[in-house]
Amino acid sequence: MKSYIVGVGMTKFEKPESRDWQYWDMAKEAGSAALADAGIDYGSVEQVPVGYCFQASTAGQRAVYELGLTGVPVYNVNNNCATGSSALMLARQFVEGGISDCVLALGFEKMKRGALGGGSDGGDFATSPVARHYGIMAARHGFEMTPPTAQIFGNAAREHMERYGTTAAQLAAVGAKNHRHSVNNPNAQFQDAYSVEEILAAKEIHRPLTKLQCSPTSDGSAAAVVVSERFVDRNGLRGKAVEIAGQSMTTDTEESFASGSCIDAVGAPMSRSAGRQAFAAAGLGIEDVDVIELHDCFSINELLTYEALGMCGAGESGKLIESGATTYGGRWVVNPSGGLISKGHPLGATGLAQAAELVWQLRGEAG
Amino acid sequence: MKSYIVGVGMTKFEKPESRDWQYWDMAKEAGSAALADAGIDYGSVEQVPVGYCFQASTAGQRAVYELGLTGVPVYNVNNNCATGSSALMLARQFVEGGISDCVLALGFEKMKRGALGGGSDGGDFATSPVARHYGIMAARHGFEMTPPTAQIFGNAAREHMERYGTTAAQLAAVGAKNHRHSVNNPNAQFQDAYSVEEILAAKEIHRPLTKLQCSPTSDGSAAAVVVSERFVDRNGLRGKAVEIAGQSMTTDTEESFASGSCIDAVGAPMSRSAGRQAFAAAGLGIEDVDVIELHDCFSINELLTYEALGMCGAGESGKLIESGATTYGGRWVVNPSGGLISKGHPLGATGLAQAAELVWQLRGEAG
Repeated sequence: MKSYIVGVGMTKFEKPESRDWQYWDMAKEAGSAALADAGIDYGSVEQVPVGYCFQASTAGQRAVYELGLTGVPVYNVNNNCATGSSALMLARQFVEGGISDCVLALGFEKMKRGALGGGSDGGDFATSPVARHYGIMAARHGFEMTPPTAQIFGNAAREHMERYGTTAAQLAAVGAKNHRHSVNNPNAQFQDAYSVEEILAAKEIHRPLTKLQCSPTSDGSAAAVVVSERFVDRNGLRGKAVEIAGQSMTTDTEESFASGSCIDAVGAPMSRSAGRQAFAAAGLGIEDVDVIELHDCFSINELLTYEALGMCGAGESGKLIESGATTYGGRWVVNPSGGLISKGHPLGATGLAQAAELVWQLRGEAG
Repeated sequence: MKSYIVGVGMTKFEKPESRDWQYWDMAKEAGSAALADAGIDYGSVEQVPVGYCFQASTAGQRAVYELGLTGVPVYNVNNNCATGSSALMLARQFVEGGISDCVLALGFEKMKRGALGGGSDGGDFATSPVARHYGIMAARHGFEMTPPTAQIFGNAAREHMERYGTTAAQLAAVGAKNHRHSVNNPNAQFQDAYSVEEILAAKEIHRPLTKLQCSPTSDGSAAAVVVSERFVDRNGLRGKAVEIAGQSMTTDTEESFASGSCIDAVGAPMSRSAGRQAFAAAGLGIEDVDVIELHDCFSINELLTYEALGMCGAGESGKLIESGATTYGGRWVVNPSGGLISKGHPLGATGLAQAAELVWQLRGEAG
């Protein structure tokens, strides 16, 4: 069965500790906005997957109880940077399986201020789920005293530069484009434009990545109402409905680790495979796409994702960003929201905010 | 569509820090056992919901990578004491919706030693998801310096005693039965029988609950392979297959809070509603049931659940346990595994271990 998003909402993404709100306040704001956008009551919602990483178990219940106390199942899900997308993935499957006609997918994150990875639970490295990934990095690049996520993506960037001649300016161009896109997005954490030169001159986090090419920690929430075709028709929602034509989630295979390359360890093979699966599900290809929200946690990941989606060949993404093909006037508009780099990256909300942006873009409501 | 469990597995539940293993070791043991029981390879598994509360995000991936690196979606879910059941709930829906033919639901927990609630993330009470529940308790009973979960269930027990004349010996009888049941369960954390007198004389945790009526912190893992009817037939698994005839998950409604009673705040109305929904889904009633695994986190919750399931009328559960109706030779056998009280309660594994016990019982394999 088909699934449709009929309502989306998000809070402004905020610098952590800059606004006096709890996770349930932000969830209420985003959830209410999504329901209002759909023109439905919370009473219509049959199940609620909630994504977040940094609150206690069952915080999802506490958050959605602000929307109503209807007794429906609530699932707390986490998947690091894919947390919000995981909530959407569950919602879509409940609907496509005919299990539910109306599901609210909601995500929020209240992070700690400061360095990248702030807000993380700072667990024991020995038991870290990603110790193998960092071990591969350390074997090739050693380990520096820079934030670990910036370090592994930064080393992926170094490999891309060495292998393909990608330049620091091309990486900075990703930041310049996404910061420029955010200028008109009132929900973005940052709304300032920067030149490539300013981005190159910003504080270095892990060479070649400067601060303006790294997603900041962020507070915020986003939500999407996912419904069946029957629900769309019964409630006269054709005008609001955006079909989820294809979606895919993948995890590591041996390909992530076999080469010893950070490009593979940060997930380029997984992105390639997920893109192929999503296109296959939709019966469409990259040539059918106009607008893309992709996971630019760091500038290099936007370039890697161009290649993973088949927007260009391996190693050609630096030239692609430079050509202007991925901004207004180009072949695709990538990250019109400002992306994670400028809009912010509250883990539980990120994927759902990307879905919200795409819904607004496809409805022609993005302004 | 129908769903079937064709393989289950669990580790022995162990006192925390008594065995040198990581969460992925226990997940590998339980997951491998479930796959071996089903006689299938991990390569057949299409999706993996993983339940746990006390590890970093994506620990589910780290854990199931021990079983293989096939790139399938992995969802990390948490729902406090219902965490393992939530993983099963997702697996069942993927199968019943026709989205997947074979799903592995897996749960694990590596807890901290010591008091009840050890292993909890000890978050800020002001932002606790259950602050409202504890506020209701404090309004009626004050707040003592005893472990919070024992306190709210203990106060529910006090209310039950005041309202219905339930006795401390009837509550202790739950502990006696469940400890007695565990004697023959090699997977149980404890395997010692105790008399009602011994249970009454044990260390008081929160009056009237003594230590031998409270589930201990525990390490362990459990898993279930959930498949479609098509998968059962294609793989010749009829002899192993146990149908999931009905399942339900609920959250709080106003009924949890309206009375100001701990009996309602700890979830008696939710259990009643979930039971009704599950029986309706199955087209069966409590009179059709022979064996029950229920959530005896504390002895009082076993009594409340008797009433919620319609095994007796409101307030009659003390007499029901005393009558012997819920043990071997009675109308039902409740918690043949030893229950949470004696088998242990590693949050992510608990619900799946209950499913495993029921599968073994229904197959006649429980010994």
